[in-house]
Amino acid sequence: MHAEIIAIGTELTTGAKLDTNSQWLSLELAEVGIPVLFHSTVADGHDNMLSVFRIASRRADLVLITGGLGPTLDDLTRAVMADLAGVDLVLDEPSLDIIKSMFARRGREMPERNVIQAQFPRGSEVIANPRGTAPGIWMELTRDDGRVCRMAAMPGVPSEMRHMFFESVRPRLPGGRNVIQRARVNCFGIGESNAEEMLGDLTARDRDPEVGITAHEATITLRITAHGASADECQTKIAATKSDIIQKLGHYVFGEEDERLEDVVMQALADRGETVSVAESATAGLLALRLMQAGGAGSSFVGGVVSPTPQSKSTLLGIDESESSHGDPSGEIAKRMAEACRERFRTDYALAISDHPHDGEQQPDEVRATYIALATRSQTLVQGIVPVGDPAIQKSRLAKSLTNMLRLELRNHSESQPS
Amino acid sequence: MHAEIIAIGTELTTGAKLDTNSQWLSLELAEVGIPVLFHSTVADGHDNMLSVFRIASRRADLVLITGGLGPTLDDLTRAVMADLAGVDLVLDEPSLDIIKSMFARRGREMPERNVIQAQFPRGSEVIANPRGTAPGIWMELTRDDGRVCRMAAMPGVPSEMRHMFFESVRPRLPGGRNVIQRARVNCFGIGESNAEEMLGDLTARDRDPEVGITAHEATITLRITAHGASADECQTKIAATKSDIIQKLGHYVFGEEDERLEDVVMQALADRGETVSVAESATAGLLALRLMQAGGAGSSFVGGVVSPTPQSKSTLLGIDESESSHGDPSGEIAKRMAEACRERFRTDYALAISDHPHDGEQQPDEVRATYIALATRSQTLVQGIVPVGDPAIQKSRLAKSLTNMLRLELRNHSESQPS
Repeated sequence: MHAEIIAIGTELTTGAKLDTNSQWLSLELAEVGIPVLFHSTVADGHDNMLSVFRIASRRADLVLITGGLGPTLDDLTRAVMADLAGVDLVLDEPSLDIIKSMFARRGREMPERNVIQAQFPRGSEVIANPRGTAPGIWMELTRDDGRVCRMAAMPGVPSEMRHMFFESVRPRLPGGRNVIQRARVNCFGIGESNAEEMLGDLTARDRDPEVGITAHEATITLRITAHGASADECQTKIAATKSDIIQKLGHYVFGEEDERLEDVVMQALADRGETVSVAESATAGLLALRLMQAGGAGSSFVGGVVSPTPQSKSTLLGIDESESSHGDPSGEIAKRMAEACRERFRTDYALAISDHPHDGEQQPDEVRATYIALATRSQTLVQGIVPVGDPAIQKSRLAKSLTNMLRLELRNHSESQPS
Repeated sequence: MHAEIIAIGTELTTGAKLDTNSQWLSLELAEVGIPVLFHSTVADGHDNMLSVFRIASRRADLVLITGGLGPTLDDLTRAVMADLAGVDLVLDEPSLDIIKSMFARRGREMPERNVIQAQFPRGSEVIANPRGTAPGIWMELTRDDGRVCRMAAMPGVPSEMRHMFFESVRPRLPGGRNVIQRARVNCFGIGESNAEEMLGDLTARDRDPEVGITAHEATITLRITAHGASADECQTKIAATKSDIIQKLGHYVFGEEDERLEDVVMQALADRGETVSVAESATAGLLALRLMQAGGAGSSFVGGVVSPTPQSKSTLLGIDESESSHGDPSGEIAKRMAEACRERFRTDYALAISDHPHDGEQQPDEVRATYIALATRSQTLVQGIVPVGDPAIQKSRLAKSLTNMLRLELRNHSESQPS
């Protein structure tokens, strides 16, 4: 069994819009083991659409169509499917009632032209669309060679299409009743290949659940995909894999799904009733921006300074200009920035980052670090970060390293709640 | 005349990669007046590719193919084009020499399998590829109905494909020898529909050069597209249109091409040897980040404070906490922030922005403003900005409004150079 995916719409063939539905459906069909050999895109128009549908029904066993189900005159998918099967369009009263009630809920009367959305090729099945007015169509055609071609027409709006595929199309496919569930575990402070090594056979290709690794601006995400007969079965498998991952990667794991480092840290501070302030040079305000935008930031972020010049370090933090030169080899400036920041803002913690080392002054074999520091009630930690990889993501990577420094500190002292 | 675009590759039909070449080519063909009715994507494989090529050659007058020109066994575009035309593949010695010399320049010998890239369907024309080892193929097929179908095969790598299209494919198309040149003019402080109204018939659809308007996070970009027989003709038309735009939109115009507000402002400060500092609440560090990342920022950015809390306003700027409450109706706090910032940092200018008004405390019919301020040597300007549109872009919009405030100040006093 193999499939073809057809996207309908002049907005696609003119290039006004990029079709992403076909790629998405290809990936979903691969999950249930159905290879896709063809994608076709055709402008709105009866004859060209009929020709494309006919070719597809002859060369593929499964044809998934997106678009052309709207209420306007150029929405022709219904009519073309009927012509392909050699049948007429018949009104489905229950679908009409649903469409009318959708309009009624918005306090509007259904325009007459929407009646067309309740019409279906005779002998086809209605696919419900809880997200919009256009129901989908499921149709099976017996070809001249005696084999059956299954066709499903879905709306072009990606959110409606995806929902309809999961709810009503995939369950009709061979193997499509199997449940697939996904989860993500996020890590920081470890490289992609190190993570892979530490995870060992957890990342083996034929494992169930499968664990994939992706990296984005130094954040490592482990993507877990579980297959099973039920959601419960999948969740049980995912939970076991998650605890294996946490056991192997320990403190590198900081969160799940969409959680970012700053979300986790600001939530932890809010829970503890503690506060933070920041002093930035190399990150130029990005750290303050991230901490203030974090979920649950509340009032834990007290304030920040952006001090890229000796003058600003002096004015804002009382650090002597003569000592605040570039290329500080020990992180002394970062340490003093953090301590001065914590003192001035009267916060529980302060994070600081020194200037970028000036490349011009550097010896060829010398790689200088940018220093980050964390001042707490009892001590000041300093760490040197040597720039690696894409310069475009250095600010982001440094801001994450600073946030992670505070995360590890909070994690190490999670029992000592402040009064 | 109408066209079909074919993308080759199993990486596309499986969904591993998203095809963007077809959209790009559709937009380019629209520029020369050739409508596209079909896109087809097919997995690597001789029979399926041949079937797709044959269908396309029958229903379209122009077929553009991307992909399948590499040196490996599954790169079949050459062989399939030969089979479609019913001819054999013949070696093109000049192409082979070019490929060999490309390898030689990298100090490597050409692998034997790359010979295939110098083979072409008998009777077809070689299209040079200065960017890679795979030359393209131009082939004209006379169909049964007597009409000619023109086919061009190009590499799948977007940069190679685009270059080959501009250099060697478009000039072979009817109208394709016409030169098309584009320019962009960037504006701020005006809405899309106001800009359209002020531009009048400059934005008429049938005008040459055509002027289109797009908006991104409150920056308005006017896209000029000129058609002509030569680059000089296009440039003359573009220059005239630009001066029309500047005449109509005046100070709303701030730059061209990729220039951002912060680039223009930081460059102007550097040229004048002047400095700026910032005090931010609602923008949370984004203004500092943008000014420091601007082209030509140099040492004009002295420092910044992020002061979202009364405590930080007091610590950093000496502003009394009791007066620094939310919902400041006059912009007094923003004014004092800007003045204190300018004084402490000893800069020529200081920009400041107050807190976001707290929604919870607001009356239903009341829309509160966020205040922005600019302190200069002689005065302090204050402006209220009422939030409209997508909350996700408010910080960006506010940071731009602040930057624009300084731009207009520099523009108004462009003769008064400091000593």
